[in-house]
Parts: sequence; structure tokens; C-alpha cells
Amino acid sequence: MNELNIQLDNLAEVFPQHYTPEQKAKAQTLFLKILSMKAHLYYGGKMQTLPKAGIWGFNWFNVWYTPGVSSVSTTIRDHHDLSYELSNRGNLVAVVSDSTRVLGDGDCSPAGGLGVMEGKAFLMKYLGGIDAVALCIDSYNASGKHDPGKIIDFVKMLQPSFGAVNLEDISQPNCYHVLRTLREECDIPVWHDDAQGTACVTLAGLINALHLAGKDIQDARTVLYGAGASNSTIASFLMQAGMPGNHIVIFDSKAGVHIQRTDLKSNPEKFKQWELAQMTNPDCINDIETAMKGADVLIALSSPGPDTVKPQWIRSMAQKPIVFACANPVPEIYPYAAKEAGAFIVATGRGDFPNQVNNSLGFPGILKGALMVRAKKITDSMAIRAALSLAEYARKRGITENNIIPNMEEIGVFPEEAAAVAMQAIEDGVARIKLSYQEAYNIAKFDIENARRSTEVLLKEGCIASPPQDLLIEALKETLQQI
Amino acid sequence: MNELNIQLDNLAEVFPQHYTPEQKAKAQTLFLKILSMKAHLYYGGKMQTLPKAGIWGFNWFNVWYTPGVSSVSTTIRDHHDLSYELSNRGNLVAVVSDSTRVLGDGDCSPAGGLGVMEGKAFLMKYLGGIDAVALCIDSYNASGKHDPGKIIDFVKMLQPSFGAVNLEDISQPNCYHVLRTLREECDIPVWHDDAQGTACVTLAGLINALHLAGKDIQDARTVLYGAGASNSTIASFLMQAGMPGNHIVIFDSKAGVHIQRTDLKSNPEKFKQWELAQMTNPDCINDIETAMKGADVLIALSSPGPDTVKPQWIRSMAQKPIVFACANPVPEIYPYAAKEAGAFIVATGRGDFPNQVNNSLGFPGILKGALMVRAKKITDSMAIRAALSLAEYARKRGITENNIIPNMEEIGVFPEEAAAVAMQAIEDGVARIKLSYQEAYNIAKFDIENARRSTEVLLKEGCIASPPQDLLIEALKETLQQI
Repeated sequence: MNELNIQLDNLAEVFPQHYTPEQKAKAQTLFLKILSMKAHLYYGGKMQTLPKAGIWGFNWFNVWYTPGVSSVSTTIRDHHDLSYELSNRGNLVAVVSDSTRVLGDGDCSPAGGLGVMEGKAFLMKYLGGIDAVALCIDSYNASGKHDPGKIIDFVKMLQPSFGAVNLEDISQPNCYHVLRTLREECDIPVWHDDAQGTACVTLAGLINALHLAGKDIQDARTVLYGAGASNSTIASFLMQAGMPGNHIVIFDSKAGVHIQRTDLKSNPEKFKQWELAQMTNPDCINDIETAMKGADVLIALSSPGPDTVKPQWIRSMAQKPIVFACANPVPEIYPYAAKEAGAFIVATGRGDFPNQVNNSLGFPGILKGALMVRAKKITDSMAIRAALSLAEYARKRGITENNIIPNMEEIGVFPEEAAAVAMQAIEDGVARIKLSYQEAYNIAKFDIENARRSTEVLLKEGCIASPPQDLLIEALKETLQQI
Repeated sequence: MNELNIQLDNLAEVFPQHYTPEQKAKAQTLFLKILSMKAHLYYGGKMQTLPKAGIWGFNWFNVWYTPGVSSVSTTIRDHHDLSYELSNRGNLVAVVSDSTRVLGDGDCSPAGGLGVMEGKAFLMKYLGGIDAVALCIDSYNASGKHDPGKIIDFVKMLQPSFGAVNLEDISQPNCYHVLRTLREECDIPVWHDDAQGTACVTLAGLINALHLAGKDIQDARTVLYGAGASNSTIASFLMQAGMPGNHIVIFDSKAGVHIQRTDLKSNPEKFKQWELAQMTNPDCINDIETAMKGADVLIALSSPGPDTVKPQWIRSMAQKPIVFACANPVPEIYPYAAKEAGAFIVATGRGDFPNQVNNSLGFPGILKGALMVRAKKITDSMAIRAALSLAEYARKRGITENNIIPNMEEIGVFPEEAAAVAMQAIEDGVARIKLSYQEAYNIAKFDIENARRSTEVLLKEGCIASPPQDLLIEALKETLQQI
């Protein structure tokens, strides 16, 4: 048994040799959870606030606070948009959740989402150079129900203090209503990772997969398995990126999504699916086997596998088939099984398989881009432009069947993505200010590098302590006892 | 003309010799305002978010985020109070304002308060080792009015993410209603600086002033001039600290506050004043001259001076009279004038005169104390205990007529204050956990020193830039042009 290092990059090697692959996988996840508990307790959470401005003695409080700050108050009063320049608003995102669908754990009570939302704030800072605040809110109304109206009111009220809002882990159908209303009625971007975020990173991967397969997006026939927020938005992005609607067949849990689905038409919560029903699947295909025959691409975002997608479906696809099996924690089909069935490229949502469709590649760059030009919205074109930027970045450094998209350690990707998004915001007329690509790129690069360097400096100087060595050892011991 | 240094501590010396004292004072304030604008623009505000937890490569995102964080989500779901330990909630304060009464500048529009609220967050971190987030909110309702009900809803919703709430700069009468409701209905402390904060620091100063005058709080006869939130709470604190109600006479803008004031009785917004009317001023004195005759103490928190308090009032006081003239920006009477009229000790709200009654001595330590034991409320006894601690700290290091209270550069005061407040919270039964005085002191001391060291380290390593030298020079130039 090897010693676990603080980078945690030899985790797979520290478990006993006799463990089966399944035991190893289980032990690895269990270890991460146990260590997570211990590490969160040790630090008391993971984000803090600190000055971003200098102070040289207490006289500076006369500048940063009263009486000097009076000029800032009255200037913002008279010129509202200067709030972006005179406060941290211009770089600040509210991560808002009612914690009713916290990652894989469902309703965790309002405070239960804090670990995830602070994590999101950590990622935003470290990858995107963005400041963010976790706001897990109590959305219960007087009759004890989670009330989407309360979330809407809350977000509208906090707008003056933030440059953008990230809605997160709100359960269906409330999330749709909240997102739709806020996107219409807010004057700052309201982002929802499950929709535009997942669609952006999926599109980036697909563009490069098609490139490697030598296929054109205009010709590719695609099956989308699952019709939730993510796959609905992916379908929409594919069409905006040039794929004809009649090359697309979408399945929800009942059947194919098409013009004969009157149940979708009559259900106002399915308005998005009904929109797609009118644009795709002209043959009204209802069985997946028929749809898969000769298809070039399968994008599954449905139920955890491993047997949700059948090998024979893949066998019936066109040559060089592309399979995205993105359910978490277990993909609809394991990559090895998809490959055995003839898949040319397989992508999943997991970091321990090749080609991870990782949302952390999307939101930090997209939100940074939106913030830099003080965008009022994040349009689909902005998220699609981010996808093109991600795909291009990967192609420039070289892609293979097992490496179609960047991973989040390729930090160079984020400033390019952010600058591309900022340019698209300007083109779409949703930016409050204009920057050149180079200006936007420089700001994003500086802010991201400064966020990392600040963290490193705090660690190096002991302002952030290193945890006691025992923390890792104990976590490992407890893991082994439970396997 | 001397060169201005970055510490700004020779500010008084950089203006032309021929300036009158009035011109110098005006130039100094103007300079601070101009520099404040430039410095806020240069940095884009003054607070940021940063990790407080270590990261050694990207595998740590599997600990801080998915899949490891799942154990944090489900643990908080099952044990709500662990949200204080597993997230930064335990050290996090929401600074909430609708920006309708921003310091001296009135209604500045919602975003207009950001400069002040971020400033408050800066002070909390630097003096109290507390993380804080500025939340300037849009409290307009459908009919375009500022709606106290909306502020109440907003604060109730954000409770799960914060350890305490600081209400700030909300105009009357909304502030009373909001504070009263939230203090009753919230499960975390709701702090309002104008009431308990000012009363705490005033009491601290008064205790030491009486000490120097050789008078006992039980014997001192006191006139309170002004009956707003601050002076009302000061009256209440004085009685809780041992001053008999019949030694106190309070004046509002109309007359003495006493049992015959039926206008107070019939006005629900004056419930606090009516309470005091029944406990003080038994002789129903209505004119200030009568009240001042033989009084030991005057505490004025009324309208800006310099002639609001008359020298002849002070001349009629008992021997060794104590005068607190705390209106801002100009005290009700200038200290030199009060001294000329015989005042033994004079305190004001200003940092450029001796004996500043500075709220920044109160809230950072009080909130830190409340947070450390996860208090549900901040009782008056906790704020009074803070006052006793402040007063004792000053006496230990020595007090004089011109130095009765610590200033905020005496950083040793805050951990003692915080620990004292934590002990009182435990005694009052509002603490969720218990700590010993020494434990509380050590935590506060460590957190405060770490906040400062973190800021210094970021400055030293260039993660926070120093502003260009021209910034100060230009601010000075513009100031001189405008005088």
C-alpha cells in the first residue's frame, strides 16, 4: 500500500492490491466523502472575504469608509452604472439555491446546499477570477411549501449588489419557472448551469468529436436520449450551431418528442419540449431502436446506468459513432462497453474516464466574459461562442479520440473563453460597455492568475494552514474499515 | 507644502500655511472624498472572496466539490447546526441595507450604499476577523414605495447562509419595524449599529469619564439631548448599567420626554420613547435650561452644530461636567467651546478631536463574540458587557481627560471585547455552544491577526497592487483647486 500524497493524485494506488475494480471505485468515492467532512470541519468551510484594496494604516479607513466614501455613495446615486466600477459588484456573482436538489442528494434543507454553493464560489474564483457568495435560501412559504415566487422576489431584490446571478440546484418544476421569470425581468444575467452550462460543454466536445470522425454538423444525424433541462438546451444549441432539426430525434421518458405529442402541447411546464417537438423528429419516431439505426451521434442525459443505453443500439449506428453517456454518477453505458459495441468516441460526466463533459469548463469563463462587459443577459449565442472557443483551444493543442475537450487544469482556456463570450455579448447588444478582444483577454488572464497566486501566497505564508498530516491518514483508515 | 505620505498621517500638514483652520478642515474632508473616488475606481471596490481552505492541485476539487462534498450536504441536512462548522456560515455576516439613509447622504438608491456596506465588511474583517457580504437591496414594492415587509422577507430567507445579520442605513420609521420584527422572528442575531452599537461605545466612554471625574453612575444626573434610536438605547443602557431612571431627563425635538407626553403614548412608532417617558424625568421638565442645572452628564445626539448646545447650559452643570456632543459631521458644540464653558471631559463622533465615540470599536468585537458561540440573539447585556470590556481595556493602559476610550488602532481591545461578549451570551442563554473565556479569546485573537496578516501578505506579494503615486498627488491637486 503506497502512501497517499497531499495532491491526492495517487489515490487509485493506495488501496489494497486485492480490491476488485468495483471495490476500488467505491473506496475512492468513500474516501473523498470522508476526507471532505474532515477537511470542511478543519477549515470551517472554504471561502472567506478579504480586502482587494490596499490599506496603509488606519487613516485609510477615512478613505474606504466615512467621511471619504460619501463621494462614492452620491456618485452611484446619480450614475447607477458606476456601481460596477466603484464597488466589487462588477466582479461579483450570487450563487443562489433553495437546496431542494443538491447534486445527487435531493432536498438537503436550505443550509444543506452550502457545501456545494461555496464549492461553486471556490471554482469561480480559482478558474474564472470571479468573486462569488453562496446564498442558500429558505424558500418555504406560510403553508410549508417551497415557493418559486419567493426565490424570484429574493433574486430581484439582490440585483443592485451583484453583477450576475447563478441559480443552482433548484428542483423541478420550480427551477424552470424561476429561471424563465428572472431571465425576463432581471437587468443582470441569470445563469443556470444545467441548461446553458451543460449544453455549452457538450457542444464543445461534440464539435471536436465530429471533427475527428470527419463529419459535418450539418449532416450528422443525432439522437438525444432524455429531454430534461440539459438535453432540451443541447438540442436547441445544436440547431443554432447548424444542425438541421430534421436530423434530430429526442426521447423523453415516454416516447419520441414530436408534433403528435399532444400531452406536451397541453402541459405548460413542457413548453420547451413542445417547442422542440415542432422542430425535430419529422417522422414521429417513437422507438429508440429505429432512431438509433444509422445515427451518427447519441447524447444520453437520462438515468444512471450502466445498462440504460444498450450495446446493440450503438452497433446499429453509422460508421465512427459518437456516444455521450453523461448520467451521474454512473454513465448510461460504461465507456469500455460502448467501445466494444463500436463507438469511435465516448464522453461521460466523470473525471476518471476520458473526455469528461465538465461544467467547470463552462461557467467560470462564461460568467467572467459576461461580467467584464457588464452584460444584461447571457444569450445562447454567448454560450455557443464559449463552446466554439473551448473546442478551438483543444484543437490548437491537439485532440485525439480520448482527449476531445480541455480539462480544467488547462488554465489557459478560461481567459480565451471569457474574451470570446465578452465579444459575443457586445455583438448581441447585451453589453453595457465595450472592450476589445485583447483587453478582455488581458483582464480575464490577470484576474484568474491573481486569484490563484493569492491563494498560493496565503498558503505559502501560512495564512491558510495546511491540515495536520493525520487528516488524510485517518480518512483513509476509516475508508478501509467501511469497505 | 509637505509631501503627502501613503499612510495619510501628515494630511493636516500638506495644505498651504495661509489656510484658515476652517479651510484646512474643509480641504481635508474634500481630499478624502476625492481620493476615495479615485481609489475605489482604481481597485473596483474593496472586498473580494478568496479560499480559506487549502488546495494542492485539482484533485482537491473532488474534496471541496463533487463527489466528496456530498457528505457535507447530507450531514447538514440531518444535523442543521453543523452548517456552522461545515461551511463559512459560522463566521459570516450579511450587511443588509436598502440604502435609504446612507450615512450623511440620505437615500442613495439601492446600489448607492455599496461603498459604505463594503466598507463595513472591510472593518469587520480587519478589526474583528469576521467575513461579511454587502447586500444593498431593492426594497421598492409594486407601488414604488420602500417596503419594510420586503426587507423582512429578504433577511428571513437568507438566514440559513449567515451567522448574523447587520442591518444598516435603513431610514425611519422602517428601520424600527424591520429591526423589531427580525429580532423577534429570526434565529440568528440581527444587529443595528445605531441602537446597540452607539450605546455600547457611548457607555464605555461615559464609564471612564465618570471614573476620572470621581463620580458614581448611580449618583450621576444625566441629560440626553435627542431621542432617536441611539439616545433611546443609550438611556436604556444607562439604566441597565445602574443609573436610576429618575436621574435621567431626555429631550426630543419637541420637549422633555415624560409621562405627560400623550403624543408619544398614542404614536405606535414612538413606543420606545413612550417606554422611557414612563421611567425617566419624574418632574416632567420641559425646558433644557432647567434640566441642565446641576447635571453631571450631557449626552447630545441631535442636530449638527456647532451651536446646538449652548455654552451657558454647560456653565450651569455640576462640577467636572461631562459632555458628549456626538452629532456628525459637526458636533453640537465644538470641544474647545465646551471646555471654555467649563467642561471637564468632552467626547465627539469625530476622529480629529480627542475621545471619539467610534462605532468601529463596538460592532466588530460584539459580532465576533456572538458568532463564536453561535448566538441566537445579541442581548443588551452582551452590548453592555462589551462596553465594560472597552472601558476596562482603556483603564488598564491608562486614561486621561483627553483619552477615555481606546481607538481602533489598539487592536488588542477586540479579542478581549469579543471574548467578554461570548461569555455574556452563554450567561444569557442565547449561545448555541459553550467556550471558555480563554478559548474565545484565542479564537478571536487568531482570526483578527490572521485577517490583518492575510491583507499584508497580499499587499507585500503584489496580489493587491499599490496604487500609482499619481493618485494621491492628483487628489491633492484637485482638492486645492476647489478650495
